[in-house]
Amino acid sequence: MRRLQVKSRAGEYQVIVGCGAWRALHRLKGYSSVFILTEISLWERWGNDLLRDAGWAGLSPILVPSGESSKSLSMAGYVASELLENGADRRSLLVAFGGGVVGDLGGFVASTYMRGIDYAQAPTTVLAQVDSALGGKTAVNIRAMKNLIGTFYAPRMVVSDPTVLASLPSRAFRSGIYEAVKHAILSGPGLFGWLEDKVAGLRPDHTQILATLVARAAQVKVDVVSRDEREADLRRILNLGHTYGHALEEATGYRRFLHGEAVGWGLLLVTRLAERLGVLDPAAGKRIAELVRDVGPLPPLRGIGEQKVLGLLPRDKKAIGGKIHWVLPEDIGKVRVTSEVPDEAVAMAFRDVQRGVLNG
Amino acid sequence: MRRLQVKSRAGEYQVIVGCGAWRALHRLKGYSSVFILTEISLWERWGNDLLRDAGWAGLSPILVPSGESSKSLSMAGYVASELLENGADRRSLLVAFGGGVVGDLGGFVASTYMRGIDYAQAPTTVLAQVDSALGGKTAVNIRAMKNLIGTFYAPRMVVSDPTVLASLPSRAFRSGIYEAVKHAILSGPGLFGWLEDKVAGLRPDHTQILATLVARAAQVKVDVVSRDEREADLRRILNLGHTYGHALEEATGYRRFLHGEAVGWGLLLVTRLAERLGVLDPAAGKRIAELVRDVGPLPPLRGIGEQKVLGLLPRDKKAIGGKIHWVLPEDIGKVRVTSEVPDEAVAMAFRDVQRGVLNG
Repeated sequence: MRRLQVKSRAGEYQVIVGCGAWRALHRLKGYSSVFILTEISLWERWGNDLLRDAGWAGLSPILVPSGESSKSLSMAGYVASELLENGADRRSLLVAFGGGVVGDLGGFVASTYMRGIDYAQAPTTVLAQVDSALGGKTAVNIRAMKNLIGTFYAPRMVVSDPTVLASLPSRAFRSGIYEAVKHAILSGPGLFGWLEDKVAGLRPDHTQILATLVARAAQVKVDVVSRDEREADLRRILNLGHTYGHALEEATGYRRFLHGEAVGWGLLLVTRLAERLGVLDPAAGKRIAELVRDVGPLPPLRGIGEQKVLGLLPRDKKAIGGKIHWVLPEDIGKVRVTSEVPDEAVAMAFRDVQRGVLNG
Repeated sequence: MRRLQVKSRAGEYQVIVGCGAWRALHRLKGYSSVFILTEISLWERWGNDLLRDAGWAGLSPILVPSGESSKSLSMAGYVASELLENGADRRSLLVAFGGGVVGDLGGFVASTYMRGIDYAQAPTTVLAQVDSALGGKTAVNIRAMKNLIGTFYAPRMVVSDPTVLASLPSRAFRSGIYEAVKHAILSGPGLFGWLEDKVAGLRPDHTQILATLVARAAQVKVDVVSRDEREADLRRILNLGHTYGHALEEATGYRRFLHGEAVGWGLLLVTRLAERLGVLDPAAGKRIAELVRDVGPLPPLRGIGEQKVLGLLPRDKKAIGGKIHWVLPEDIGKVRVTSEVPDEAVAMAFRDVQRGVLNG
């Protein structure tokens, strides 16, 4: 079992990673009642294990439908009504048991129910275990924009058991691995080299390897958010691969790519961009591109216009005019944040990758 | 112009009270854009004055319907959509220009839009100026419960110009005065005696007297929340009159009483209760009851069963079993918080006041 310590402005908490991590929920004591937010298929497969490990026999969960559409204000209202109806008070604990949707929604409800109750995250996808369940960001979507409404609100504990990943569909599984690749690039040769060795043939039921991967990749995020929980400069490096990635998701109406898949393409694209700008060590560029490719197949880029992608690149909402903050890889373990990137280079890098020009 | 300083965990800010207070909004600089949340009738009457005083010529407001039904998650979503559509970013300022509904809703949206933007309160009712705009509580209602969803989030500034009170309907005006009476009881003989002198014949357009009343009554709340912004023991004293008051609002489906009117009855009832329990100085009890009566007529208590009221008294959601924390007046300027009050006394006090047994 690995224990990572998050120390952020919003609070201190442990991230516990490993087989049996849910047992750490025992340590959350003194609550008037415990509520579990989850989705039905996950609950049917793993609910009894969670209840047994946590020692919460007999709890009924609050269920929300699978999928991004549950990250809404109306669903937050539904969950709050269910909490109220079942007697949740200011001393209740809410456990978000699921992937990014359940985690973001559950955290948002916890942060606003009676002006804030405690919550814990029990993430059940690779993406949630290495990324979205960490850092204290909660969110729901407004039709016009994802994550438009949310709070900064730290959980009491994050418990990530990799056993649960075994039931992930392979595409969802790989989607999370791309985020782990991102963390490996940020981290350095140690984790990156380890992942290069392991990535081929990595499967959802390779629990021991995944335990190590999740713990090491999560540590990268924990280190960043512990130094900078509010949205600020340091935290920007976590957007590696997300600049192009967000534009690809937008350009395809969030239908073609899972989030991590868009990040996978985003890593390839920004690597190509860094090469074109001459800031990336060529050997490192080749390794990054190969590692991304080794995760598995990505849905194709075809039919996405470069001008459309350019127009959808996320711009800094803090600044009038809206610069784009690029996170460019310079080497394994080294990135540069800059807004001094010519549009021309951005477009050409996209064209290169779309046409299959190999990185490196 | 009076300047009150709030120092709370959620932040420090000034409360500026007096004719021309809106001009202080000039001091809020450096925002990418400014948005005003308000309601149409208020905007038509006072919008130009606000824009002129604040130096924001030409701004169009975001309008929400009058009334409690606007304090909803769906209205919060609507306001967020309007903000997004009109280009609000993380550096935008939201100004809540209205009474308690607009203030609570605007604060909630500000605290969650892009995970939190700055906001200012420009309260336009007595109740909002002396009470609800102060203290950093934001909220929306879920059908099943008022203020179930909310945040603690401090405004950048509160600007209370009593001139705007001139357009209040007399019932809404008096409703806020009951909250000022509550603050006077908590404060002591100075403010209480002053209010005894002024209350008879007090009208919405008595701007100079109201400026003093608002500043002095607001100071009482500012003092309490500056020492204790989170919901805790000290802040409990602000619930004086609200225990019976909430039960009366619930028992009549929030239709018979304005909030302040329920507090007015609540003050009479808890004064009678304190007398029955022998903890209240009889002369003080008489003065409190007379001051409440002098504010003006209250909607009748008739037809409300004492058992219904007893069943609806708000219980502490932090404790299993749910004690009632009574705030009992002991003298002008002195209250006692206790949960050791027999139900029998609570019922008898209600019966006394309902039957017109005079306090004192």
